[in-house]
Formats: sequence, structure tokens, C-alpha cells
Amino acid sequence: MEAKPNAIVAQSGGPTAVINSSACGVIQEVISSDRIGRVLGATNGILGVLKEDLFDISAESPETIEALKQAPAAAIGSCRYKLKSLEASRADYERILDVFRAHNIHYFFYIGGNDSMDTADKVAKLAAERGYELVCMGVPKTIDNDLAYTDHCPGYGSVAKYVATCAMEAGKDTEALYTTDTCSILEVMGRNAGWIAAATGLAQRCNEDAPHLIYMPEVEFTFDKLVSDVKEVLKELGRVFIVAGEGLKDKNGNYITADTGAFGKDSFGHAQLGGVAEILKAVIEKEVGIKVRFNKLGTNQRSAMHFASLTDVNEAYMCGQMAVRYAMADENGKMVTLIRQDGPEYKCTTGLAELIDVANGEKNVPAEYINEKGNHITDAMRDYVRPLVQGQAPITIGEDGLPVFVRFQRKPLEKKLPEYL
Amino acid sequence: MEAKPNAIVAQSGGPTAVINSSACGVIQEVISSDRIGRVLGATNGILGVLKEDLFDISAESPETIEALKQAPAAAIGSCRYKLKSLEASRADYERILDVFRAHNIHYFFYIGGNDSMDTADKVAKLAAERGYELVCMGVPKTIDNDLAYTDHCPGYGSVAKYVATCAMEAGKDTEALYTTDTCSILEVMGRNAGWIAAATGLAQRCNEDAPHLIYMPEVEFTFDKLVSDVKEVLKELGRVFIVAGEGLKDKNGNYITADTGAFGKDSFGHAQLGGVAEILKAVIEKEVGIKVRFNKLGTNQRSAMHFASLTDVNEAYMCGQMAVRYAMADENGKMVTLIRQDGPEYKCTTGLAELIDVANGEKNVPAEYINEKGNHITDAMRDYVRPLVQGQAPITIGEDGLPVFVRFQRKPLEKKLPEYL
Repeated sequence: MEAKPNAIVAQSGGPTAVINSSACGVIQEVISSDRIGRVLGATNGILGVLKEDLFDISAESPETIEALKQAPAAAIGSCRYKLKSLEASRADYERILDVFRAHNIHYFFYIGGNDSMDTADKVAKLAAERGYELVCMGVPKTIDNDLAYTDHCPGYGSVAKYVATCAMEAGKDTEALYTTDTCSILEVMGRNAGWIAAATGLAQRCNEDAPHLIYMPEVEFTFDKLVSDVKEVLKELGRVFIVAGEGLKDKNGNYITADTGAFGKDSFGHAQLGGVAEILKAVIEKEVGIKVRFNKLGTNQRSAMHFASLTDVNEAYMCGQMAVRYAMADENGKMVTLIRQDGPEYKCTTGLAELIDVANGEKNVPAEYINEKGNHITDAMRDYVRPLVQGQAPITIGEDGLPVFVRFQRKPLEKKLPEYL
Repeated sequence: MEAKPNAIVAQSGGPTAVINSSACGVIQEVISSDRIGRVLGATNGILGVLKEDLFDISAESPETIEALKQAPAAAIGSCRYKLKSLEASRADYERILDVFRAHNIHYFFYIGGNDSMDTADKVAKLAAERGYELVCMGVPKTIDNDLAYTDHCPGYGSVAKYVATCAMEAGKDTEALYTTDTCSILEVMGRNAGWIAAATGLAQRCNEDAPHLIYMPEVEFTFDKLVSDVKEVLKELGRVFIVAGEGLKDKNGNYITADTGAFGKDSFGHAQLGGVAEILKAVIEKEVGIKVRFNKLGTNQRSAMHFASLTDVNEAYMCGQMAVRYAMADENGKMVTLIRQDGPEYKCTTGLAELIDVANGEKNVPAEYINEKGNHITDAMRDYVRPLVQGQAPITIGEDGLPVFVRFQRKPLEKKLPEYL
């Protein structure tokens, strides 16, 4: 009797608090399926496939697999390795199929953003061309929330909850110390989309609350506007709390962190060393004459499992689980999407989008979510994000008082092919 | 019948997650005392006293006062206004007594660090000199944990729990993405003491866990050592996670952020714009040739009420409460201290120290808490900090899914004196 086909699951790009929940959904659903043999993990995403660096997730304990729901970052391992077009990266794509063939892999579940969906799409197409039976399914993942065809992305709800709370808390700090530490900046991620910055707007329940100003990459950024915005808030409240997306751009679409003009490195020096927050700080201190502090949460915002959204964890799991169910229902070459149902109660179901469409799409914060002045959000944005931050995802606390995060045993699969890369 | 004497409570310096718990302890205990009239708040610490900017905390609802236990930052308001010696700032000290007299204030509860204890001490001395009946009691507060005469400081346990968890979580991120994002730096507070940096050591349960390297101001910092430390960890694990205290110093005791030498602004440019993390990043990228990211939690670490230590919240409350009880027992001119009891179970009681002694003291991380290489902590440090991070302080979550933090109504007291400042 021929062995049942195996499945492989891989994670790609910047981790999130819930990418392991998606992995857990895939893994548990594969294990409960009688049509699939083992579920394998690709160490460090597609890099693990290329290097034939695989391990047997089926050999991990059920407790370890269940604990993925509570573990931030990518437990299977992630990477930033980019594959180009089928023509330009042909050897890589062929290698992927070779590795799949060598390990009897006929199901490929790829958890990631647009680039990953692009890779999965091309692998699916090459497999079809070669007559190799392969089901490729994408599971959405990105804190940036910029994937098209899905209401929102797993990972976003948790980062939204965390950064909004951070804005609230640091805002209280600024409120307490405003007589000297008058202005604070919270720099958040989002290179091209302002979804994360926008989420912090939920923290402002009344005028006094932080954040008072929110700058998103969707709005052309000018230092003149910044200075006048800051002065206006100062006049009203005597303090100002600013949230800045890391990817703010000037009128020409250039990142202000690369600015070489009047406010760039010539006048403020070595802007290349700093991010958006440093530049804003320098400008405000010089032009407004108040002390500015900044917080840069960095990777902590996308790994904040200790305050993750339960809604997000559950939806991330559902996306992973549904990817397998859709595969069992003969779907292929598609990514699972989240569909927000109409009605007074928030409810989300799943749907499907073509991998190629997701790969080529991008979703920015729409104009109706941004206020007229371009420095805060509207109630429509609040309504959009509010349901996504609901609930506290459970975590296990160890005897030392700190969270316990699982790590795989990683039983490596024997390599069957010549070395590559 | 003469009115009962009033009490005033003030908060000073950088806020913490639990400084309001201490205020709550003071306020609730004063309210339950039949020897004290009203409890007043000094808006923005001693600045509020000087400006006669006071409000009636007794007029706030009991629910608001109780909710202080869940509110980060300084709800009464804080400041960085520094009083000098009795001679140099005589007018200020006289003004404080004038304001106290005008509002029948005979109890002064000051929640803060050494500078605040110094102020409280001088106020007490001047009052005695002037024959004005005044009880001055200090309540310890600082995330820096550098106050002498107390086992630890309220505020420290919460920041310790939060930064250790952040190191754990961001460490997982680095572990997942190490093939490109090989090195991460977490910059934490602590200008002169490394207690906060040291606390992150608790996150490392095994060799693979972050943080791999911890740099504290107590150890002379050299870039050569940094580079060789990083290379050693890289060789073993292929990645490295570093925690750096913001106040790292060179062999001459100068902050490395003020460095103008080989690794200073001449070679890395405009170091004055950056903090420790930026400088370490620049050096490691150049000398080791790996990509470095950094997270700078800033004021978010000291305001992280969403993950505060229950032990810390309870002890902060106890310190406030005991300050009043000691005052009722005729103590004066003293600060409440925390005393760790001997025995297998962690237990803390309170004691007293002279304000002047606390003002002149400082407590750094002792040598036995730092490993021989000067780049991590010992088990003695783990044993010290572990009990302090235990338990999750409750927070109230609003319908919008985010924490609810209280804000005083602030019923201002009528001013009775001429303007000052």
C-alpha cells in the first residue's frame, strides 16, 4: 500500500503574535484528516524547503502543538528569502518541487503575506505544468493588515490591541509629566500602510486622551503641518502625544527617513541613523521648543503575546484550519480570507481568494477612515478595528512569573537530495 | 470647634505602573482615619504646592479612588521640579509652608525617589524650625530600584515583569527570523543603575533563550568587549539578543551616548541624536557585519499597567497605607521601606528609614548579581527578582476592548495666597 501524501506547513516574513495559532489550525486539522500522512515543518519558511531542512511536526507532542496558540513569533521558523518570477528563480521553484517529491509532499500550506502568496502561486503553477499533484493553500498573516480580498489579516487584531494600549499608557505618562516632558512620540510599524498607526486612535475616548495626532503613510507628510498640528494641540491641552507610522512619506512619495532636504540630514544630521520618531523629535524640539521623548516598540509590538487579542488568536486558528478543510474540498491555489458578516454583532467567516490576486493586491487605509485634517482617524475606522481587539488570549505563566512559550523538539527529516544553497 | 488637620499627597518624578496604588493606599487610609480632615492632591507634585494648585481628593468618588490601583502613571500629576538646598531654594521651602498653613495641611505624604525624599526632609526641617506642626512621610517609588534602605522599590516589580516578558517575546521574533535579522537590541531604562536590564535575565530559562547578553551601567562598557561577546554568541546560536541599559558608561564613567572617540560621532555620526541602542547597532553592524534591529520601550516600560505585577501593586498600596499608619503612630521625617523576610516563602513587611539617609543613598546592582564576564546576571539576581514579578494585577477592560484608566474630576481648591512662580 502506498503511503498517504504528506503535508508541509511553512511560515514566512515578519512574525506576529498569532502566526503560530494559524500553524496550529493547519497542523491539528491535518492530523485529524485520514487523507494526509504526516505534517512536516519547513525550518525557516521557504528557505527550509530549498535546503531540505524539514522536521516532523507529527512527532511533536499534542501538548506542544496545542501550546502554539499561546506562542508568539514563528515557531516553525521564518525567513525573508524572496523568490522572483518563475523565469528568474526557475531553479528555486524546481528545487521546491524536487524536495516535495522526495518527501511525498502533496499539500503545501503557506502562512504569510503577499510575497508568500506569490511564491505559493508560482509553485502551484509549476507543479501543474510538471504534472505533479500538489495542493497549495495560503493562510493570511501580517500585522500590516495590507492584504487585499480579506476584511483583515490575522496578526492585526493583536498588534492593534497592543499599540492602542501602549498609546493609552504612555499617554498617561505624558499627561502626568507634561510640565517638562511635554511631547511624546510612539513610533509604530507599517512601512507602506497605516493600519497599525490608525488602530491607536481607538485609545482616544475623549479629547484629552492620547493619541492627539496620528500620522499614517497614506497621507502626504509635511513638517510644516506637523509643527502647526503640534502647536494647536499644545495650545488646547498643554501637551501632545503623537503616533507615527514608520513609513511616513513626503509629497514625492519618498520616505522622510531618507530626507536630505531642509529637515533632513543636513540640518538635523545623520537621519540615516534614525527612524521617523528621531526625525520628528528633532524637528519639534527645534521648531516648537518643547522637550520630546519617543518610544519605538519595534518587534515587541508584533510579538506581544502577553496582551494578544483573543478574537485574533481564534481567527488565526480558523484560517489555518479552514485552509486544510478547503484543500480537502478540492480547492487549490487559493488563500483563505476573512469575511465580516453584516449585522449588529461582529461575526467573521472565511472565504477564498486566488493566490495571484492576493499577491498583486495591496490594501491601504481608505480615505473614509482618515479625518479631514489627515492627522487622526474617523469613527468608521474605530468601528472597523474595535471588534478585532476584543478578548484576552490566554497565556500560561511559569513558576518564575513569566509566560511560557513552546519550542519544537525538531526531529529533522533525513535529507534525500544533494545540497542546495 | 477647630477643623481637623488636612493631609496632602503628591507624586514626583517619572511615573510607574503602581505609583497610583501607593496614592490609593495613602488616600484610603487617610479617609478612614478620624484624626485627619480632608486629603488634598497637589497637581503636578511639588509644583502644585508651590503654585497652590491643589484639589480635593476627598471629593472624588470612592470608585475613582479604588480604581487608582489599576491606573498607570501619576493620576495626581507629577513634575521634575527640583528644589535645592534650604539656603539656595529658601523661598520655595517657605512658600510650601505658607501653602500648607493656608490650607490647614499638617500631613505631607510624598511619593517619589531620592530627590523627593530630600525635599520632604527639608520641608520637615523648616517646619520644625518655624514651629509649624507637620508630619512628613515618604513613600518609595522608582522603576530604577536604586533607593537605599529598602529591599526594593514599588514600581520595579512591574517594570521587571514587563521588560523580561518583552525580552522573551522579541527574543522569539529574533529566533524565528535569525537568517536575516540576526541581532536585536532591547534598550531599557536605568540611567545609573542596571536593575531593569538585570531583570530581563529572568527571561533566559535556557541557553537558547533571550537575552544572551545584558549590559548594565555597573560594568565598564567597551566596544571591543561587545564585539567579542556578540561573535561568541553568534558562533554558538547563529543569532544574538542583547539588552542594554540606557546609561552604559565607559572606563572614565562617561555615558557612551556622549562618546566622541573612535566609536562616537566622528565615525558613526551624530550619536547625540541616538541612544545606546543606536550606537550599539552601528558598531555591531560595522564590526560584525550582521543586521541589527532595536526596540526602545521608553515610557511604555514604566506605564505597562496591562501586564503589571500583582505583588508590586499590593506592595505599593501597602507602602502608601503604612505611611499614614506610621504617621498616626507619631513617626515623622521618614520613608517607608520594604523588608524581605527570611524563609523559603517570599514575604515582605515594611520598615522605616530617615528621609535624609534615603536622599543621600543610592543602590546599584551588587557585584554578586552580575556574572564574571560582566554581560549577564547570576542566580542570586534571579532569586532576588523572581518574587517581585509574581501575579497579574487586575485591569478593567472597556467595551472597546481596551483598558480603562481613571482620571480625577479635580475639584480645585480656592487659592488663598498671592501668585507664585
